[in-house]
Amino acid sequence: MAEFMTGLKRSCYCGEPRLSDAGKTLTLCGWVQHQRDLGQLIFIDLRDRSGIMQLAFDEDTDREVFQKAFSCRSEFVLAATGTVRERTSKNPDLPTGDIELAVTELRILAKSETPPFAIEENSKVSNETRLKYRYLDLRRPDMQRILTARHRIVKTAHDYFDDNGFLEIETPDLIKSTPEGARDYLVPSRIFGGKFFALPQSPQLYKQLLMVSGFDRYMQVARCFRDEDLRADRQPEFTQIDFEMSFVEQEDVMAIGEGFIKKAYKDLLNMDIPTPLRRMTWQEAMNRFGSDKPDLRFGMELHDVSDCVKNTEFKVFRGALAEGSVRGINLKGKANDLSRKEIDKLGEWVKSYGAKGLAWTRLADKETSSYEKFLAPEEVQAIRTALDAQPGDVLFLVASDENSVVYASLGALRCELARRFDLIDKSKPCLLWITDFPMFEYSKEEGRWMAMHHPFTMPNPEDLDRLESDPGSVRSIAYDMVINGYEAGGGSIRIHDTELQARMLKALGFAQEDAERRFGFLLNALKYGAPPHGGMAWGLERLVMVLLGIDDMRDTVAFPKVSSSADLMSNAPDVVDEKQLRDLSIAVAKE
Amino acid sequence: MAEFMTGLKRSCYCGEPRLSDAGKTLTLCGWVQHQRDLGQLIFIDLRDRSGIMQLAFDEDTDREVFQKAFSCRSEFVLAATGTVRERTSKNPDLPTGDIELAVTELRILAKSETPPFAIEENSKVSNETRLKYRYLDLRRPDMQRILTARHRIVKTAHDYFDDNGFLEIETPDLIKSTPEGARDYLVPSRIFGGKFFALPQSPQLYKQLLMVSGFDRYMQVARCFRDEDLRADRQPEFTQIDFEMSFVEQEDVMAIGEGFIKKAYKDLLNMDIPTPLRRMTWQEAMNRFGSDKPDLRFGMELHDVSDCVKNTEFKVFRGALAEGSVRGINLKGKANDLSRKEIDKLGEWVKSYGAKGLAWTRLADKETSSYEKFLAPEEVQAIRTALDAQPGDVLFLVASDENSVVYASLGALRCELARRFDLIDKSKPCLLWITDFPMFEYSKEEGRWMAMHHPFTMPNPEDLDRLESDPGSVRSIAYDMVINGYEAGGGSIRIHDTELQARMLKALGFAQEDAERRFGFLLNALKYGAPPHGGMAWGLERLVMVLLGIDDMRDTVAFPKVSSSADLMSNAPDVVDEKQLRDLSIAVAKE
Repeated sequence: MAEFMTGLKRSCYCGEPRLSDAGKTLTLCGWVQHQRDLGQLIFIDLRDRSGIMQLAFDEDTDREVFQKAFSCRSEFVLAATGTVRERTSKNPDLPTGDIELAVTELRILAKSETPPFAIEENSKVSNETRLKYRYLDLRRPDMQRILTARHRIVKTAHDYFDDNGFLEIETPDLIKSTPEGARDYLVPSRIFGGKFFALPQSPQLYKQLLMVSGFDRYMQVARCFRDEDLRADRQPEFTQIDFEMSFVEQEDVMAIGEGFIKKAYKDLLNMDIPTPLRRMTWQEAMNRFGSDKPDLRFGMELHDVSDCVKNTEFKVFRGALAEGSVRGINLKGKANDLSRKEIDKLGEWVKSYGAKGLAWTRLADKETSSYEKFLAPEEVQAIRTALDAQPGDVLFLVASDENSVVYASLGALRCELARRFDLIDKSKPCLLWITDFPMFEYSKEEGRWMAMHHPFTMPNPEDLDRLESDPGSVRSIAYDMVINGYEAGGGSIRIHDTELQARMLKALGFAQEDAERRFGFLLNALKYGAPPHGGMAWGLERLVMVLLGIDDMRDTVAFPKVSSSADLMSNAPDVVDEKQLRDLSIAVAKE
Repeated sequence: MAEFMTGLKRSCYCGEPRLSDAGKTLTLCGWVQHQRDLGQLIFIDLRDRSGIMQLAFDEDTDREVFQKAFSCRSEFVLAATGTVRERTSKNPDLPTGDIELAVTELRILAKSETPPFAIEENSKVSNETRLKYRYLDLRRPDMQRILTARHRIVKTAHDYFDDNGFLEIETPDLIKSTPEGARDYLVPSRIFGGKFFALPQSPQLYKQLLMVSGFDRYMQVARCFRDEDLRADRQPEFTQIDFEMSFVEQEDVMAIGEGFIKKAYKDLLNMDIPTPLRRMTWQEAMNRFGSDKPDLRFGMELHDVSDCVKNTEFKVFRGALAEGSVRGINLKGKANDLSRKEIDKLGEWVKSYGAKGLAWTRLADKETSSYEKFLAPEEVQAIRTALDAQPGDVLFLVASDENSVVYASLGALRCELARRFDLIDKSKPCLLWITDFPMFEYSKEEGRWMAMHHPFTMPNPEDLDRLESDPGSVRSIAYDMVINGYEAGGGSIRIHDTELQARMLKALGFAQEDAERRFGFLLNALKYGAPPHGGMAWGLERLVMVLLGIDDMRDTVAFPKVSSSADLMSNAPDVVDEKQLRDLSIAVAKE
């Protein structure tokens, strides 16, 4: 059986001793990274979360200890006591590379089977195996670094908001189901058979209630749940850094939000982010970058060429103009780096964003174009001028009778080309606010106007008179914080007036009864004196990704789910006992 | 409609200005506590989370502003700009009582209906109404104080553990159902129809996996869920301050635990708790106080009088001795304060703890006793001596062939009498560790030995040879932190050895297959090198109760559930749409 720690006291972490500690007697604990048996000499690299220390066993070592060292294999857990001494052959790549521990006492605290993959940075192993053996995957230095950084960001949040007078108040996880947007996870009630709790998609309603309660400044590192079909950048459970404050306008919320992100960059990366952050309206972001989360670390802006073709004979373009537009981007100087075949593939690719196709002009030595032949020479020239076309450039145009399709297609194409041609300046992060979001967006599926953020978002008072007559033109007091092309956070000023909230729910097509049933407790609360309030939230996983430059959200979570929502390590979800279901008054439905 | 904050900036909180601020122009925001209309004068007490400021309106006030002030009712939300001036009649009970704000500009940010109860400390109102209108209940200064204290304790935990090298790592809320003890809340999976996630009862398995992963020192402020029938001191969702550490023995965990509680008392109450804390074995606590969470702020210890009656003719006592015992307590000097009727009631009451009855002797001017007549004089005398009986005392004895019944009955009686006769010295808190818990307790219901803590608790190595032969005598390396008679926290050293863990599960009656299915991922993890590790957790709600002297756990939670698990404010749980159930492949079972 394994040995115990009885009577042993670890002196410090493996990565901490230095040459100045030579002569000291230390006890170190950790895992065997390598064991090298050189006959009369055995070296063991002992690893813990701080780093590695070389353990040395030689002819002076007690034979029993030597034999134990001989038996050690990778990932055995050891406690070693010995004397720090200078190495004969130093390792300049290791912070502890000048020294080793000449071991006098060794305990094998646990043995290990051969692990399914080597515990080292960038170990080559499939995602499935990593997740199945997550407890081993997490031993790798890169995973340790990421979760340490995640801790640091959360601690910074606790410190920053506490320093600014915010109280962390926990809101419930077992709440009423009020789906609007994503699906709720449901939790059957045992005591009220046939009734259900839901897990919160966000603490939105509760943090508004806390403002009604006079808490004035609230924050929470809050677990949230959305039962959506997962993508690479989604997890069914995720964490928000969430805050809300009373008696404020948009400027006050932004100032608090900027203060946090500035401190996070400083604490984690020792990087100074100049504030106030740049701002851009939603409309400008869409016009110039085709995205409400534009990455400004590179150019390749969108240009509206509708005017250039307003009288064209070319039906594809002309047909777009009444309701939509024709816009383009210019990929500078890459005409010889992008084959006709690759351009055709991009044409297929943009169709997933709703575009009917991609019009292009390649200004290589031999100029080729998919659309210029259909246009008058002055139209061709006008487009080229608008896009600042030079020899060597590639022009891409999208025409659609829906501007949203033009934006989405060109916005995505712009990012894809930048990625492919490495046009992004990664030397410094790019943060900005997007403001003045539309209050509503029209859902063709539902045949009604939906809230772009949520139904509690304050519309811009200047636009209130058009709330019913022209909802599409109403702006909201909502704002997103965009970092390097990702929506890192977002929030809004909320409606604090009962009548305006009722008017908003009506504009969104809620029957009064339905609104009462779902949000009645918030609507009631507003009747008893709600202060003007607003706030925002960051997705913690997204924040870790952006700050550390990680591509896979799963790497930011200790025990993540895969895209089917399953946990490969514990095999969850799983079947449960019939009795558990009976207790809950539910049954699994037959096909 | 309500007015907005547009262009306004709050200067400070209502409770902050002092006489030294006289002459300054300030903007204050808050709720109307009272409006007093004295004809030519109107006073409004404006309340926010910091306190109250008197707003003054007089003949110099702009008429429109005066009219607005006239219209204000309780709980209206105001923003008031004006000049700080010295009051003519001061209020020494109020920190801001020397001054008032002579208002020049007033905005009514929100009106309020008449609230269902007055927003003031100790407002007389039923619990149901408080919880239904929780957003108003939370406006009361006492609730604000409690949630502010809760925030402070949590912040102290984040600071303390970060300072000591612990990383906060979030463990998942959607996990596999492995019920052992309380019922799991289940969450149906949409993608895997017929399978379920469970909500965690604690992060136990995951924090052990993090130790296997080499994180070395983990902490989390973790939401936990138990679907139990609720009592006054239970909530279906609750929060633990949880930590775990590697390469340690019990002493190391206790030292970290003591450091936290010391800091919590200091930060919150400015109170110095001497450490190391007193310790007592489980057996001593049971023998002397009949409880594994003894309140040492008063005496009235239990005494074993079995020896005094070992040869007695009295069957009630003698029958108890083979397997159990006869024990007693002495309520000093209260013989004339406890009527025969009250004693009889206590006799009924202890039956809920399994006792068949309560034997008593009342040493009032006239001595009376329920049992002395059945005993020999020397037996009576021996019992009186053992209990240090003096004139004026009341003696209580419980006899049972199960010691657990004797302990439970007398332990509860001891606390009840202390409460009733106000014997508890509340001037300073009493903290101690209970150690050496039994590893197992026998469940008559299940007909098997159960783990008293959980199946991953390390048995005392000295007792390992009796694991199978005499489980009842095996001690575990588990420890509870008891404060003022409450179990505030607890933990253990865990099993880090694969073989010992397998042996333990076998001793607990788990079939290997069942153990694999439920805890397979932990058992697998132990095969790859688990360090010796241990930790503990505090119940946050309990900690807030104990530190602040609160009786009702619901007062420590912003949005609590009642004992049926329902939320009276939002009316959760509730029925959901059929479509939601169809998506989840479940149906509500018919009766």
